[in-house]
Amino acid sequence: MTAVGTKPHHARSLAEVLVEGDHRGHYSHGLNRMDMYVKDIKSGICAKDGEPVVEKESAATALVDGKNLLGPVVGNFCMKLAIKKAKEAGIGWVVAHGSNHYGIAGYYAMQALKENMIGMSFTNTSPLVVPTRGKECTLGTNPISMAAPANGGDSFVLDMATSAVALGKVELHERRGDSIPEGWGCDAQGKLSTDPKRVLQGGGLVPIGGSEATGGYKGYGLGMMVEVFCGILAGAQYSKHVRTWKVTDRVANLGQCFVAINPENFAPGFSDRMSDLLSIQRGLDPADPGCPVLAAGDPERIHMDECKKIGGISYHLKVVNYMNECAKSIGVSSLLPCDKLIPN
Amino acid sequence: MTAVGTKPHHARSLAEVLVEGDHRGHYSHGLNRMDMYVKDIKSGICAKDGEPVVEKESAATALVDGKNLLGPVVGNFCMKLAIKKAKEAGIGWVVAHGSNHYGIAGYYAMQALKENMIGMSFTNTSPLVVPTRGKECTLGTNPISMAAPANGGDSFVLDMATSAVALGKVELHERRGDSIPEGWGCDAQGKLSTDPKRVLQGGGLVPIGGSEATGGYKGYGLGMMVEVFCGILAGAQYSKHVRTWKVTDRVANLGQCFVAINPENFAPGFSDRMSDLLSIQRGLDPADPGCPVLAAGDPERIHMDECKKIGGISYHLKVVNYMNECAKSIGVSSLLPCDKLIPN
Repeated sequence: MTAVGTKPHHARSLAEVLVEGDHRGHYSHGLNRMDMYVKDIKSGICAKDGEPVVEKESAATALVDGKNLLGPVVGNFCMKLAIKKAKEAGIGWVVAHGSNHYGIAGYYAMQALKENMIGMSFTNTSPLVVPTRGKECTLGTNPISMAAPANGGDSFVLDMATSAVALGKVELHERRGDSIPEGWGCDAQGKLSTDPKRVLQGGGLVPIGGSEATGGYKGYGLGMMVEVFCGILAGAQYSKHVRTWKVTDRVANLGQCFVAINPENFAPGFSDRMSDLLSIQRGLDPADPGCPVLAAGDPERIHMDECKKIGGISYHLKVVNYMNECAKSIGVSSLLPCDKLIPN
Repeated sequence: MTAVGTKPHHARSLAEVLVEGDHRGHYSHGLNRMDMYVKDIKSGICAKDGEPVVEKESAATALVDGKNLLGPVVGNFCMKLAIKKAKEAGIGWVVAHGSNHYGIAGYYAMQALKENMIGMSFTNTSPLVVPTRGKECTLGTNPISMAAPANGGDSFVLDMATSAVALGKVELHERRGDSIPEGWGCDAQGKLSTDPKRVLQGGGLVPIGGSEATGGYKGYGLGMMVEVFCGILAGAQYSKHVRTWKVTDRVANLGQCFVAINPENFAPGFSDRMSDLLSIQRGLDPADPGCPVLAAGDPERIHMDECKKIGGISYHLKVVNYMNECAKSIGVSSLLPCDKLIPN
């Protein structure tokens, strides 16, 4: 990132969220997306200079102009502000326009955990999701993330696209030459398809819940809710007005929303109840003895434990090669040779 | 309700939300549930006297003790308070413990529309939903509702259970002797079932998204998020600690959450963008020409138009008979004889 002109502290913000994405097992939101950020800075469509600015403010709210900086720069600025407001007013609700892709939404929500607060973050994205009954993409994967602290460093961390899956998962399947399960996406006629190419070219992702019969209209409604919190509330681009995915013909102007809630302003004993809530679910007798009941954030915890065990984050060889091509194209050194090969 | 001792203004609050449920086509949350409220007051397990009390307060937040009053009494009190706070502080986030079933969540969210604000409401409920991978109900149907104003009285109104369907829909199918679609609920072993009896007796509803493979873990996560906003934040009952559905052996002590957000504190032009967002979706070319693309709140609008056309709310004969039995049991007059019969 610095090779294409990003300021070192902005590059560091991006590096941290991308590596955290991979570390948590969300490979679709990590180094896999590196070239997109490099291109955005290289072409000048994403700003290199300046810092985000507060445009309008009250004790509990703020509207921020992200000044077209890298998403993580805007995200860190806004989340810090939301937490500051929640300390004073019990809640901080901050929205930003003029932002860019910010990596995993959960990264910002989790920043509230260090302050023993509930954190939330939402972003709109390029149109990739087809509304129930439609055949055209008019909504992004518009994620909902929410983190809540329990005792002893434990936590609940929800971080989910409001589409059945994130686009990155379809892209990874295409890159690996695999088909996708039914219910992830549809073709250009609005019909469900298992071919990632059909979904990526002319089709689209479907909302969580799948078809109308299985409740896809709920996922569509949640995606719209996120758009209201982001593009609509912030006065950023929204819905089909957001630029096409990976086409950097114009400024992204994404809308994002960051919330911190201080449990101290409500009933005492919050983290004790959170720990009990998590224990209830984790302690359940599973339907299949081999598959324990988990809480949101547990799959990521399992992945991070695995990383600790093997001494690093494992990458698919195709992703390593892809990263090295990206490095070569801008004249920086390749990744170090793989020191461990893990069979599939 | 007054026949069993409810104060007239509390009975009116309940009547309004139940009739509004039916009017909007959510028959599972209307008169269909009348006997539950009657029983709660009759047995004394739900309080008849007093009003809700603010326990803790800041400019943007409040913790309310619902004093075990009827849910709509607590809900109206809290939503009014959230709107008042949003006028002054940009946002109002109010949670209540000591509440009871409050009807459709959207009823409270929609109160913000009159003030040109975004409204939200959440409630926990008796354990009816089986977490992904489990076979025991440890979460309620925990609805998410969110209403946002557009121009000329138009609006976006999301009002959805975080289960694939609301329990009332399964109950109505059982009452009518119909089977349910696959993906609504599971049996006592955690396996999907189309028999409403199996779901209602020993089984449970499944989260939105269905099985783990189709993303049910997202619905499970959303149900947990609602529980954090309600039982956990408010210090009410939560998860499997909430009393069993329709068993009034002890006080419900439900947790509920009410939010109002003032768009004036963010970017100008909110309602214009809302109208455009709604137009984009509604104007889409549908996959099936007979099924237009809708926005959340439109199916309810269609139902209310239908009511207007026929001059009232239509009820299934079985529901009318059931209501009359309920009336008879407490010695009040039956519903007026049906003046119109609409064939199935």
